[in-house]
Amino acid sequence: MEPPEVGELTPPDRMLMGPGPSEVHPRVRRAMSTPLVGHLDPAFVDLMDEVQELLRYTFQTDNEFTIPVSGTGSAAMESAIANLTEPGDTVLVPDNGYFGDRMASMVRRAGGSVERVDAPWGAPLDPDDVAAACETHDPDVVGFVHAETSTGVLQHDVPALTETAHDHGALVVADTVTSLGGVELRVDEWGIDAAYSATQKCLSAPPGASPLTLSERAVEKVTSRDAPVRSWYLDLSLLADYWGEERAYHHTAPITNVYALREALRLVAEEGIEARWERHERVAGALRDGVEAMGLGLASESWLPSLNTVALPDGVDDTVVIDHLLAEHGIEVAGGLGDLAGDVLRVGCMGHSARPANVLALVAALGDVLADQDADVDPDAGLAAARRRL
Amino acid sequence: MEPPEVGELTPPDRMLMGPGPSEVHPRVRRAMSTPLVGHLDPAFVDLMDEVQELLRYTFQTDNEFTIPVSGTGSAAMESAIANLTEPGDTVLVPDNGYFGDRMASMVRRAGGSVERVDAPWGAPLDPDDVAAACETHDPDVVGFVHAETSTGVLQHDVPALTETAHDHGALVVADTVTSLGGVELRVDEWGIDAAYSATQKCLSAPPGASPLTLSERAVEKVTSRDAPVRSWYLDLSLLADYWGEERAYHHTAPITNVYALREALRLVAEEGIEARWERHERVAGALRDGVEAMGLGLASESWLPSLNTVALPDGVDDTVVIDHLLAEHGIEVAGGLGDLAGDVLRVGCMGHSARPANVLALVAALGDVLADQDADVDPDAGLAAARRRL
Repeated sequence: MEPPEVGELTPPDRMLMGPGPSEVHPRVRRAMSTPLVGHLDPAFVDLMDEVQELLRYTFQTDNEFTIPVSGTGSAAMESAIANLTEPGDTVLVPDNGYFGDRMASMVRRAGGSVERVDAPWGAPLDPDDVAAACETHDPDVVGFVHAETSTGVLQHDVPALTETAHDHGALVVADTVTSLGGVELRVDEWGIDAAYSATQKCLSAPPGASPLTLSERAVEKVTSRDAPVRSWYLDLSLLADYWGEERAYHHTAPITNVYALREALRLVAEEGIEARWERHERVAGALRDGVEAMGLGLASESWLPSLNTVALPDGVDDTVVIDHLLAEHGIEVAGGLGDLAGDVLRVGCMGHSARPANVLALVAALGDVLADQDADVDPDAGLAAARRRL
Repeated sequence: MEPPEVGELTPPDRMLMGPGPSEVHPRVRRAMSTPLVGHLDPAFVDLMDEVQELLRYTFQTDNEFTIPVSGTGSAAMESAIANLTEPGDTVLVPDNGYFGDRMASMVRRAGGSVERVDAPWGAPLDPDDVAAACETHDPDVVGFVHAETSTGVLQHDVPALTETAHDHGALVVADTVTSLGGVELRVDEWGIDAAYSATQKCLSAPPGASPLTLSERAVEKVTSRDAPVRSWYLDLSLLADYWGEERAYHHTAPITNVYALREALRLVAEEGIEARWERHERVAGALRDGVEAMGLGLASESWLPSLNTVALPDGVDDTVVIDHLLAEHGIEVAGGLGDLAGDVLRVGCMGHSARPANVLALVAALGDVLADQDADVDPDAGLAAARRRL
């Protein structure tokens, strides 16, 4: 076999304003070029402690069990679902976006049965519906999506959901993939039992080591299971021995991704978590004001600053807009999924990408691309509104 | 909650001569500091094609299904095992090292039953024993470890194993974690149906995106399963749609790890795979000559250049040797596992760590540390022998 001839790594320069990844901060990229130490090196063990402490701050929790899972966000998601679902358990999952379906698939593979809480795509769950579903199905676990990347919906009233679930003896799992580090999230105060996230959204580290936190009650369920978890790689009772006091070898941690996460979380701590939430709201607010003043609306009933679902005018082809933004401006945004496919753009405003310069460039470029498509928009008004807000 | 105060990332400088990770080549570290593009960006799709082509070359296979799994080596391992094991299947696993046990645990979690092929720790499997086990148990899958990281054993006669397994209608899964890119491995010629590996061994990229290749027969089994795989994250039928022609979104790939893997595989292609195998044999040969001339032996019946299991003299405490090498010389090696715990050092010679300078430093430092412990060794003779071989 002849060796393939593959040239130098020269990816194009992109402004990342899609549903993730967001742009990685230069300090985080520099951290990734640091030489490795071994995953059982005493120096790495100290570094694991620091990452855990920084993660607790970012999640706003005192949970001892707070770790990065060795995989992308979906690995952390399945860790939470598969470990908390025992065969025969009933798990309530939401029906208002893409990631509820993924939760359902994970529950079934873990041997659980799925019941749904209905809400339209683009709307949050109504706590009364969750209460009614708890009444009917008596679930063991209630899952919800705090920040729906597929629809741009923020779930409000989280404490109402967790209280209802706890009243019925259920544990609560929260998908915080697109909220952690960008949108107010208080794991302990809100009574969340398990929250999982990803690094390539509001934390702006490359994907590959994904935050997960479990309350004591959740850990108790995991460690007292009758049947072992159906994945060895994602078995949190084994991972607890590596990230806990024993530091027992389970698998090789993705060392460089842990370096990156540590630096990304240091940036969170330096900025302060509340200030960071406020920055996302302000910068994404400029984006929202800009697209609204241009003549477009948001397709979500509950605004999520980190993911803005922009409704496109009738007759505009979303793929043309997406392709032109990428080819002419080097800006990445994404189209809609599921019930919203073809009708919306999904525009992220996350982490290091949540910068005034990015939003101004995006609003200006989007206005021009839409005007080129003969859409009835006013790019100048959009840009002026965004500038006013910033 | 107060933000934690965590200082700059300043890990100590290590010479990595343990069972992995190996030292990452500077070109690979530089690749990891490259800004991200999105995982669905047309530029990333081209890059995925290149990585797949480079992986095929490194595995010496034409298998269409050849991908990096989004996790560390154990994720690729469980992908192979969990996808090829249907509930009720019988899987033959080896009993001569640590990783056979891990395979067994994965098989059981996938709903399969485990049968063992016995061999002592430190010895390879005897093909006759595999044939006898196939006769007795009529397995659906036969697993073996090509390069046992826990014992430093290379499995010879791979074609004899695969032929036997195929005669009994079984698929063959090979653990090539510590051989891929460092020790002769010919997936197609040897008739291996599934081979998984890791990047932090002989490929010298950071862990986090792990090579996996499946033959057509193996893919056919995966896609015609009755029961879905018990992990959504590791379901290869879903991953096939992302890495195949459709490029359908499954999960966010660990983009930076894919950049790193691409650069590491380019280095393999530039060196040439046969030349790379030869380098490992020569440089590790100097290590072996050095420790033997010093008065130590190797504890493996079948030498594995990438992982050398050095028998310690009676009365020497392995943890003292390991700690002194790390503290005084900044050199990482590891102790034995399982049946070999306490009796051996495991010294890696992998990828970018497989350099003459590293081996000379290690032989000299090991000789001095052992002499300090009053062990009956001759450091000068060891160093002279290593130099002669290089």
